[in-house]
Amino acid sequence: MTGSAETPLFGTVAFVGIGLIGASLSLAIRRHGLAARTVATARRQETLDTALRLGIVDAASTDMAETVADADLVMVCVPVGASGAVMRAMAPHLKPGAIVSDVGSVKCAVIADMLPHLPEGVALVPGHPLAGTEFSGPEAGFAELFEQRWCVLTPLPHTPKDAVERVAAMWRAVGSNVDTMDPEHHDRVLAITSHLPHLIAYTIVGTATDLGADLKQEVIKYSASGFRDFTRIAASDPVMWRDVFLNNKEAVLEVLQRFTEDLTALQRAIRRGEGDTLERHFTRTRAIRRGIIDAKQA
Amino acid sequence: MTGSAETPLFGTVAFVGIGLIGASLSLAIRRHGLAARTVATARRQETLDTALRLGIVDAASTDMAETVADADLVMVCVPVGASGAVMRAMAPHLKPGAIVSDVGSVKCAVIADMLPHLPEGVALVPGHPLAGTEFSGPEAGFAELFEQRWCVLTPLPHTPKDAVERVAAMWRAVGSNVDTMDPEHHDRVLAITSHLPHLIAYTIVGTATDLGADLKQEVIKYSASGFRDFTRIAASDPVMWRDVFLNNKEAVLEVLQRFTEDLTALQRAIRRGEGDTLERHFTRTRAIRRGIIDAKQA
Repeated sequence: MTGSAETPLFGTVAFVGIGLIGASLSLAIRRHGLAARTVATARRQETLDTALRLGIVDAASTDMAETVADADLVMVCVPVGASGAVMRAMAPHLKPGAIVSDVGSVKCAVIADMLPHLPEGVALVPGHPLAGTEFSGPEAGFAELFEQRWCVLTPLPHTPKDAVERVAAMWRAVGSNVDTMDPEHHDRVLAITSHLPHLIAYTIVGTATDLGADLKQEVIKYSASGFRDFTRIAASDPVMWRDVFLNNKEAVLEVLQRFTEDLTALQRAIRRGEGDTLERHFTRTRAIRRGIIDAKQA
Repeated sequence: MTGSAETPLFGTVAFVGIGLIGASLSLAIRRHGLAARTVATARRQETLDTALRLGIVDAASTDMAETVADADLVMVCVPVGASGAVMRAMAPHLKPGAIVSDVGSVKCAVIADMLPHLPEGVALVPGHPLAGTEFSGPEAGFAELFEQRWCVLTPLPHTPKDAVERVAAMWRAVGSNVDTMDPEHHDRVLAITSHLPHLIAYTIVGTATDLGADLKQEVIKYSASGFRDFTRIAASDPVMWRDVFLNNKEAVLEVLQRFTEDLTALQRAIRRGEGDTLERHFTRTRAIRRGIIDAKQA
């Protein structure tokens, strides 16, 4: 089941929130002819004006009820902490047979927040495209963002199979590889592959920010020696990431605890001058890099 | 003072150690005609065979005395922990007027280890090219490695000015921007821009390595969401980095202490659900990224 000019996958796709991810998906849907039209709602008129000016959607309104009323698919693309409020606000206006999906980096909390407000006859297909850049807003969107990236769907036991398959078909059509797993597992995997790396990058860049002004200028000047990669990650959207950490608290704190123990062990080895411990540790970590290269993810 | 086909900057340049950095520098020196010939010594014949086979140097021998005897410039390109032993071993064989330089990521400890063995009439110009990749060995070398990268020289008060200028001219000729600073300051700046980022990358990749086998496969599969950048850094040469941490202990431990305090503060904010603290921190860190982009280091 894929879209074509004659029979698009969806009639109207409505975006609630049209930042980097929503704008990129709307552009990709339009490029691949997956919907008859795409529309957007957001809190700020300025955001919608940008989306319209750049030809990202066919229509836009700050009125959420009006925007979702005719949608066959509603894509919730807001910071995860707002998911529950969005679902509650739009629930009375969704049409029977509609599908609601999302793009949040956390799945358990989003499901817990949205599910209580889900109307009868509407399907919820939680999802997470593993794609993004350090830039934010509709002007940062581009249609190729999801190509050859993973999209993880975390359907619930009672989610209708055909709704899951239509959302999966959309992601495949925009170039993604689709995987399905349970939400708890998703949140554990992402805590180590994404949430902890972001937290650490934010921390080290903050540590450098607190250095004296002279030293800070030199950190910028000589950033290519390792630090620079962290600053790119730490330039990601602050509100999105605030919500990720607040909503995947347990999994993040658990993996952070392991990280801190491991860092303390290396710190101790440095202080005591235990070269063998350091070398053994630094050699072990090469195996994962080889795995990533072998999996063609490098 | 730059090299040309008629008057190369140096007669013979000898490399003690011919891994990624030494091989790249020899290739760059040859490409730009900066020396009449380059030669290398290393502990393992296999390494030298590779360097000869790939046309990296004109001659090579495991006999250090023989290799450095005729050199106008000796580039010490070994893990920093070996610098003192190298200087002691080659000192009796250096010719008067020779210059010894190095490429170590740590400067205070290297100077402390080398200086006591420096013969009368030989100049020591400690240096550090801020360039590298996650690959090691002579086969990883390439002549363009130093182009548009910084090279920091940390001359001592009694280092002859003309020796410093000739080494600086060489680095400029291979495409680098040369800066001069005192060794203590170098070690502090590099502790935050390079050593701490590498330590943290090694730690997080190690934390992931210790996860169960199933989860580890998924970490590899979904590594593009942040983790991947860390694995590249953590694939760097283990022995080189062991020596960096052992030899820049004080500066690394000091900045690691600050980092740990900052990480603990964020951990506390996550546990207590303090969204404002997280958002404020994540917004502050954007300024450094802007600085890096403005400085054209991004």
